Amino acid sequence: MQLLDALNWRYATKKMNGQPVPQEKVDKILQAAYLAPTSSGLQPFKIIVITNAELRQKIQPIAYGQRQIVDGSHVLVFAAWDNYTAERIDRVFSHTAAERGLPADTFDDYKNRLKNMYLSRPANANFEHAARQAYIAFGLAIAAAAELRVDATPMEGFDNAALDELLQLPAQGLKSVTILPLGYRDSENDWLVNQKKVRSPKDELFLQIV
Amino acid sequence: MQLLDALNWRYATKKMNGQPVPQEKVDKILQAAYLAPTSSGLQPFKIIVITNAELRQKIQPIAYGQRQIVDGSHVLVFAAWDNYTAERIDRVFSHTAAERGLPADTFDDYKNRLKNMYLSRPANANFEHAARQAYIAFGLAIAAAAELRVDATPMEGFDNAALDELLQLPAQGLKSVTILPLGYRDSENDWLVNQKKVRSPKDELFLQIV
Repeated sequence: MQLLDALNWRYATKKMNGQPVPQEKVDKILQAAYLAPTSSGLQPFKIIVITNAELRQKIQPIAYGQRQIVDGSHVLVFAAWDNYTAERIDRVFSHTAAERGLPADTFDDYKNRLKNMYLSRPANANFEHAARQAYIAFGLAIAAAAELRVDATPMEGFDNAALDELLQLPAQGLKSVTILPLGYRDSENDWLVNQKKVRSPKDELFLQIV
Repeated sequence: MQLLDALNWRYATKKMNGQPVPQEKVDKILQAAYLAPTSSGLQPFKIIVITNAELRQKIQPIAYGQRQIVDGSHVLVFAAWDNYTAERIDRVFSHTAAERGLPADTFDDYKNRLKNMYLSRPANANFEHAARQAYIAFGLAIAAAAELRVDATPMEGFDNAALDELLQLPAQGLKSVTILPLGYRDSENDWLVNQKKVRSPKDELFLQIV
């Protein structure tokens, strides 16, 4: 099964070799994130795709010096909506109705239920909800990279506020949640590449109720 | 590319036909979730795999009557750790050291940094962090199901507290975050099956910085 083969092949690459990832492969990785299912189809996040070397050099210290940021060729920054708003919700459903050739008011009842639920909650609850959706797309981007035998290093270890400021995310109503540098492993110099992949014992992760 | 084909094939199945999913396929779906990368490798969640029909009947009203819970054959409940604790962190790294044949104190510095960061935060911040990790696994389970042409319906629409109580999750230090019923689409009777898959315009989801 390709997905399982890919997941067994991948690991959190610590050292990349500088070889660039072809843009057509990056596009497929982005397409997987694009197709990720999200709550009510809102896709409440943006993915910032950075190749610019100077900008990646500025990100590296924000990510506590992690070298994959500069030794890879692309950095994907997943940034979630900082809140749900009526405008954001309306925009998604107007687009869906138009794409499906349905009357503009098709989703009004559904939209109103969403607005009643989301717009009365604190911004932070909505941001956390949006962040979870971004993580679905993040997972699928990691899987797509692995299927293409592109290395990727999932990273949460960075100064979110500093990255948000650098990328001017607050003005776009976004907050960074995670980073994914893309590149190729430097198998000679990566201490992790030959370490056994370890996961928790299955009876700790799964509970079967038959 | 298999993953993209699978993601294009899948949709949030609204009506399932009652045909059971073979256990060997469910096991592969679980294996994808098992292999999901998580922050520091903590895998801070549990996946409850429910086939018991009576229990699924009890879950259905908790999920506002959604019929996939009973028309599918399996329900996966993703439940995140309600908090990080020293014991939970120690347990993971002891296991990793043992599996890699490393001295038991190999990860002490790393573990202490994690404990300093996590154990000083409110439980809810840790739960939200754990929930995000669960969503990576959730995304990979959805992708695996799609590759196997098993239908799955990602669900957040349920009464979390009621489900937690039914499954006795608080006693295990867990809180449900999402549900994934597995089964097969009833193509004749599912209103959504032939609707166009819609995603946001790409210039809203992606920002390229070259």
